[in-house]
Amino acid sequence: MPRIRLTVAYVGTRYLGWQIQGRGATIQGVLEEKLSRICEEPVRVHGSGRTDSGVHALGQVAHFDAPDSKARIPWQKALNSMLPDDIAILDAREAEPGFHARFSVRSKRYAYTLWTEPDFTLPQRAPFVWPVRNLDLESMDRAAALLAGTHDFAAFQNAGTEVKGTVRTLEPIRREPGQDPCEWVFRFQADGFLKQMVRNLMGMLVEVGRGGMSPEEARAVLESRDRRLAPATAPPQGLTLEEVIY
Amino acid sequence: MPRIRLTVAYVGTRYLGWQIQGRGATIQGVLEEKLSRICEEPVRVHGSGRTDSGVHALGQVAHFDAPDSKARIPWQKALNSMLPDDIAILDAREAEPGFHARFSVRSKRYAYTLWTEPDFTLPQRAPFVWPVRNLDLESMDRAAALLAGTHDFAAFQNAGTEVKGTVRTLEPIRREPGQDPCEWVFRFQADGFLKQMVRNLMGMLVEVGRGGMSPEEARAVLESRDRRLAPATAPPQGLTLEEVIY
Repeated sequence: MPRIRLTVAYVGTRYLGWQIQGRGATIQGVLEEKLSRICEEPVRVHGSGRTDSGVHALGQVAHFDAPDSKARIPWQKALNSMLPDDIAILDAREAEPGFHARFSVRSKRYAYTLWTEPDFTLPQRAPFVWPVRNLDLESMDRAAALLAGTHDFAAFQNAGTEVKGTVRTLEPIRREPGQDPCEWVFRFQADGFLKQMVRNLMGMLVEVGRGGMSPEEARAVLESRDRRLAPATAPPQGLTLEEVIY
Repeated sequence: MPRIRLTVAYVGTRYLGWQIQGRGATIQGVLEEKLSRICEEPVRVHGSGRTDSGVHALGQVAHFDAPDSKARIPWQKALNSMLPDDIAILDAREAEPGFHARFSVRSKRYAYTLWTEPDFTLPQRAPFVWPVRNLDLESMDRAAALLAGTHDFAAFQNAGTEVKGTVRTLEPIRREPGQDPCEWVFRFQADGFLKQMVRNLMGMLVEVGRGGMSPEEARAVLESRDRRLAPATAPPQGLTLEEVIY
């Protein structure tokens, strides 16, 4: 059974997220359906981790074990010819021995995009940004600097997933220009993320940018490890899983 | 009756184009519905011209005459609060005396985006590009150079619209890098465009790029003024109306 490693991009707008749910379309569900059709037997797809409903990906990674009889199928071509326009396979190759899309992850990088033009949101960008206004970027940068490092991020974890501990190592958060001149992209890289951790960190940074909280108060929320003290979760559409590093 | 000039951006995917049809959603139709609601009387919106079903805009221009009783409404804010995410008002202001969105046009600029990565189309870009492969860009540039200037563009006009003559002045076609490294954007500016003229020119340039036609043969199609000699029309989703110049 050759193990095939996929790099997957998707626009998450239409989906209930990565993981198969009781009902509704998911990325994993669509991939499993197409692969099961190609392989003529049920195929299970393992992702590097979940993405929430409405979250996008440029570099989600997944694997599946192909039946020996199908070992020579050109997976990328076969899948892309069957997939809807909002999911694409950017790469498909045989995985190195022992590779597992979830257990082998070393780190992940997410990008969160803010739209700061107050009078309109460009329709071409609306599905990929969070429109916000009047941000004090310097305060946000100071708060971001206070969040990086190895910490217990329990204050930024939403309920719903069992995880082993809540300590993670977050690299320095980078703020970079986006595609449109009014956009800012915040890049978060860590050895792992808790449920909705990026959206919770982003929600707090925007709260700091709006003047509702000081950088020091943001740091105190981190130290409290108390979810109830953290501001509201940022909306999903601004978030993209950019890369999974193995 | 103050005349209000609007700059409108839209993602055309869901629409039957700019102009109101017997049935189905159109950009003009949505704008007239919202403005009529705001003005509490029927409002007619005049665009700079039509865009086809599936074509996008970053700078469509339109005008309407507002009832005097509504002269002080903040049009941009009022409209954007009512419009769906795929249409936005980028600017709204009182028009100069004598301004007419269609009759005052001096020139227009369209951008057509090609996607040249053969193995996949990025889902984030799929609604805005035409995926093509193996293009000879030098031949395309040579053909493009032979098309610019003041010519009778009858060979590139699809049936269906009454126009005064088919002579137009096309500025030199510019080929420029796009958003993704595998994209090329072709920019077409002219004092006016015939129905589907940009898509027909683009279709022919891609045919040249594929080696199905030489630059000189492309020039001969222009000179023939015979629609039947021109290659197939490029698909709508690669096209964006970027700017209307007055």
